[in-house]
Order: sequence, then structure tokens, then C-alpha cells
Amino acid sequence: MPIERAGRLSELAFIERLRALPGGDRDVELGIGDDCAIVRAGGRRLLLTTDALVEDVHFRWRWDGPAGIGRRAFAVNASDIAAMGGTPRFALLSLVAPKRVATSELSRLVRGFAAAARASGCALVGGNLSSGARWMISVTLVGEPCGMPLRRSGARAGDLVYVSGQLGAAALAREILLGRRRGRASETAAFLRPTARLELGAALARARAATAAIDVSDGLLQDLGHLCRASGVGAVVEAERLPYASVLRRLPRRERLELALNGGEDYELIFTVRGQRAERIPSLPRVPVTAIGRIVPGSGLRVRAASGEALPVEVRGFDHFRR
Amino acid sequence: MPIERAGRLSELAFIERLRALPGGDRDVELGIGDDCAIVRAGGRRLLLTTDALVEDVHFRWRWDGPAGIGRRAFAVNASDIAAMGGTPRFALLSLVAPKRVATSELSRLVRGFAAAARASGCALVGGNLSSGARWMISVTLVGEPCGMPLRRSGARAGDLVYVSGQLGAAALAREILLGRRRGRASETAAFLRPTARLELGAALARARAATAAIDVSDGLLQDLGHLCRASGVGAVVEAERLPYASVLRRLPRRERLELALNGGEDYELIFTVRGQRAERIPSLPRVPVTAIGRIVPGSGLRVRAASGEALPVEVRGFDHFRR
Repeated sequence: MPIERAGRLSELAFIERLRALPGGDRDVELGIGDDCAIVRAGGRRLLLTTDALVEDVHFRWRWDGPAGIGRRAFAVNASDIAAMGGTPRFALLSLVAPKRVATSELSRLVRGFAAAARASGCALVGGNLSSGARWMISVTLVGEPCGMPLRRSGARAGDLVYVSGQLGAAALAREILLGRRRGRASETAAFLRPTARLELGAALARARAATAAIDVSDGLLQDLGHLCRASGVGAVVEAERLPYASVLRRLPRRERLELALNGGEDYELIFTVRGQRAERIPSLPRVPVTAIGRIVPGSGLRVRAASGEALPVEVRGFDHFRR
Repeated sequence: MPIERAGRLSELAFIERLRALPGGDRDVELGIGDDCAIVRAGGRRLLLTTDALVEDVHFRWRWDGPAGIGRRAFAVNASDIAAMGGTPRFALLSLVAPKRVATSELSRLVRGFAAAARASGCALVGGNLSSGARWMISVTLVGEPCGMPLRRSGARAGDLVYVSGQLGAAALAREILLGRRRGRASETAAFLRPTARLELGAALARARAATAAIDVSDGLLQDLGHLCRASGVGAVVEAERLPYASVLRRLPRRERLELALNGGEDYELIFTVRGQRAERIPSLPRVPVTAIGRIVPGSGLRVRAASGEALPVEVRGFDHFRR
């Protein structure tokens, strides 16, 4: 979710326009509109993804040290590779840095990024630097799929909807960082130190367990909505099954629900599984997965209370040009 | 060359720092420091490059229509693929746009970019959009080498130094656009509509004609200097052999020389050739190449007048963090 929200242009509308461009390249298996593009080079599939973090839109410079910001820039991009069931192999880093920045700060950012990449088997192979008013950290990753890539578009009515890890802690952390809520410094780590679910994504792709997948960057409902639209289906989410982060316990139920459903920045994976394939879901230490609902025919998302009544939840999330 | 020049940090120093990062990935054949990285995926070589155009640093928004700015963003990046003797295959576009921007302007920029890419056999497969104070157009290209990739590092003493096309017109055009010189609107095309020398680069790689290559983005002397440092050699350039753009004829000799040597933005190719291989240089219609000097032992660049005397030319060029 953005720090500032104003403007005329929707990133979603932008992506739709990109999708409408002429295609026709037989080496492009999947173009714009999923977490990664799938292309063929030399007969082998590659995953390609790019995303940018803009200072004061996506983060504030003083929220973390430069190395931490670099690590986070890698993680949020690697999450797109995870959502396709791939492994990141090569990274390119395009930086715009304010002129006041000391060389040592820039170096720490790059070293943090490169170290995080290396820890995931990914090499930083290209970079460029420009000056500008604010930081802009644009990352491109080249990944290799582990098995058949996971797309957003394979979910069918009856599939179960799963999410990894816990939800809402990153959004709460952002609120604390923005000074909108009180909290402990340790509680900000959920925002500042996300983990891309690379192991889970790869295991799902290898096991052919999932019919569709996406990562939670904008918010559970918005991202599940993307998956549903790409698949031509709807979904029902059971509110009481959501894996709320434990730090949300102190909050009123309404706020907890809002952070878990619309907070974003969790970088967990949402994936859908046919009923008979549930046993194929890989069991990974320290990566819990939770069934939170079901794919239904039609379109749209509903969030249901334990009583069965539909909760009036608005789908919101990160689109910093729209609000 | 930048529009504004100030700051503490050198992009060259930044690249040096990136190069110093731990490597060790056997699929990275050539890491940071050349026009592209060379990596291996699925046993095949790929070329990877990223570069960004920042508003008011590299261009001004009102200098051209959005489609033209998009086309130029592709061309200046494709030039890095050309310098390695490759062909661009897949493009990713990371945009920061000011909030005032109309959707139609953004669409025209992206369509201009995608059309230029398509005309070179390259598909736009990924993009993202953020809001920011100024335009930032960050491009990543994935290319495939045509034959053995051309590097900066293969030049040896005795090699001839060639440059394609003509020099100085783009720098003159930028001066006109900045209002620093008078000129006709038609003379600004050399800056606004550069052409990446993809055909020449590919032909050089296929013919194994060149020992080293680089494109002229920062300025002939600065870029030849990069090539020489990477190769551990020096070079002598013969001033009277330089292929001055015809629009420079009206200028005093001193200014003409300055624009051709230090102006930059030409996006021509500099390449070096062993004497006995000169006959292998591909002869392409509409792509003249000119021998402008010779590689010599040692280091450093000298520019020599017809009389043989060394001209006191300063190596300058684009490094917008340093000046």
C-alpha cells in the first residue's frame, strides 16, 4: 500500500494497456499481466520481472539502513519469481539516488541487495546510477522455472484457496513506521524484512500441486482478485480461517480483518489447489500454509463470517495512482 | 552528457564498486562493467543490460512527444546490445511518471517504446508504473548474441580503431534543445531519434571481425577510454580522420572537435580490428565505418592533428554525478 495516494492514473489500467499491445512473438509464452513474463530463449523457459521502489511512495529512506533497504528491494522482486514457482538467477539494479547521498550509503544498499540475491542463488550482473530528487530502486530479475511455471489463470470452481505464512503484520508495521499507530521497533521488521517464499513456490511448481498462484503484495483481497479475474472465477474467503499475524491480536476484530485483507506487503503466496491434489502440497518446515476459502463460479470476492453471513469488506490495496 | 551536473558520486565509481562485489557464479560469464552482462541460462548465452533515462537529467519532457521519448528509450538501451554484437529479444519497462500525466501521454510513450522494440524483433514483456516527481524510464533488455559477444576487453596494441556513422550531431542537437545554440528544429533529430547500430554489431560478431567494441553514449573519448582501460592499452586518435557530422561544418574547428570527441549521445559503435582482419569488416549499406586511430601499448588517449602534434584535448563526457 502506498504512503501517498493521489493522481489520475491507475497502475492496473496501465498494465491493461500494456497487455493490449500487439504481440505475436512466438518466444513469448506469457506476456504482461502475471507476476512474471514467461519467455523462451534457446528452447528454455525464463521468467522475467521488473518492479521499482520509489522513496516516499513505497518506503521512506530513514525507516531502515541502506543495506536493509537493498535487501528488501531484492525480496519484494524475488517474491514475483516465487509466485511463478521459479528461482531467481540474475539481477539488474537501476538506481536513482539523491545527490546528497554519500558513496558509503549507496555501497551499503548495493551490497545488501547483492548479498540477499546471492543467498537465493541470484547474481547481480548489471546496474546503473542516475541522480534525481528521490531514491528510486528499479530491479529486474531473470529467473528459471522449477517445473511448470505457476500462473494466475489456472484456478477453477471448487479449488481450495491457500495462503502461506501469516497476514497483516507488514501492514501494521507500516502503520507504526508512518507514526499512525504505536508499536515496538521489533514489530516493524514484518515490513522492513519480508521473505520471498521461493522455497514454497518452487516446491509447488515441482509437485504440480497448485492450479494458480500469486503473491500478496497489494493485499490479500486485491491479489486474490487478480488471480480470480485471470482465471475467470470468483472466490469465497472464510474470515475466521485467515492466519492473522499474532501481533494483530491486540486490535479490534474489524481492524485486524482490514489489515489482513487489505494491508498488503506480506509477500506470502496465495495458491489454489484442486481438492484431490491437496495431499501434494509440500510440507516445508517454517512455512505454514492455510486453506482460507474456495474458488466459486462467476466472479467477485466474498468474505464470510463463521456464521455464514457475508462481511461487507471493501477490496482495497496498493494502487498509488488511483487514490 | 547530462543536463545538470552536480553531486558527489561518480557513476563510474559506482560501477567499480559493483564490480568488486563477490562473484563466483559459474553461469555469469561476464558481470558488471561492460555494455551488457553475459550469462548462461539453459546452456545458452544471454545478454542483459539495464539503463534509465531521468527527466531533467537525461532529457526534458517537452523536447519531444511521448512516443518519440519511448522510441528513444528503446534505442539507447538497444545500443548496449548492439555494442555486444547481439539482438534484443525481450524488454521490461519500469516507469516513474509525474501524477499530472494524462493516461494518453503514458500510453503513447509505451506504444512508441513497444513499436521501436518490435521493429528490432524485441517484445515488451513486463512493466510497472509508479508515481514520482519526475519521469524516470528504466529499461532492461534481454538479448541474444549473434556469434561470439563483443567485449570491451579484447583490443591489443596495433589494432585499428573504427567508429560507425558520424559524430557530434547529437551533442549539437542537445545544445540547440537546451537553447545554448541556434539551429533548425530538424537538427534536433540527431539527439531525439538515435539509431542503435544493431545490424553492424551483429555483423561484426558474426564475422569475428572486431577484437573489442563499445557504443558512444558518453562521448567518443570517454567511451574509447573505457575500452582501452578494459583492454589494458592506450589509443591515438587522428583528429582529421574523425567523421564529423555535416551540421558541424559551420562551427569553428575547436568546437567541432569538442562536440565530436566529448559530446556523446551518438550511439555509434567504436570497435577495434587487427590489421589483417580489416577485410572482414562487414560492408553495410548506410552504415559507414571510419578508421580513426590505432591502439597503442600502455594507457591513456592522445588526439593527434594532421601535423602529428598532440592536441590538448580533455576527456570529458557524461557522468552526471561527478560534475
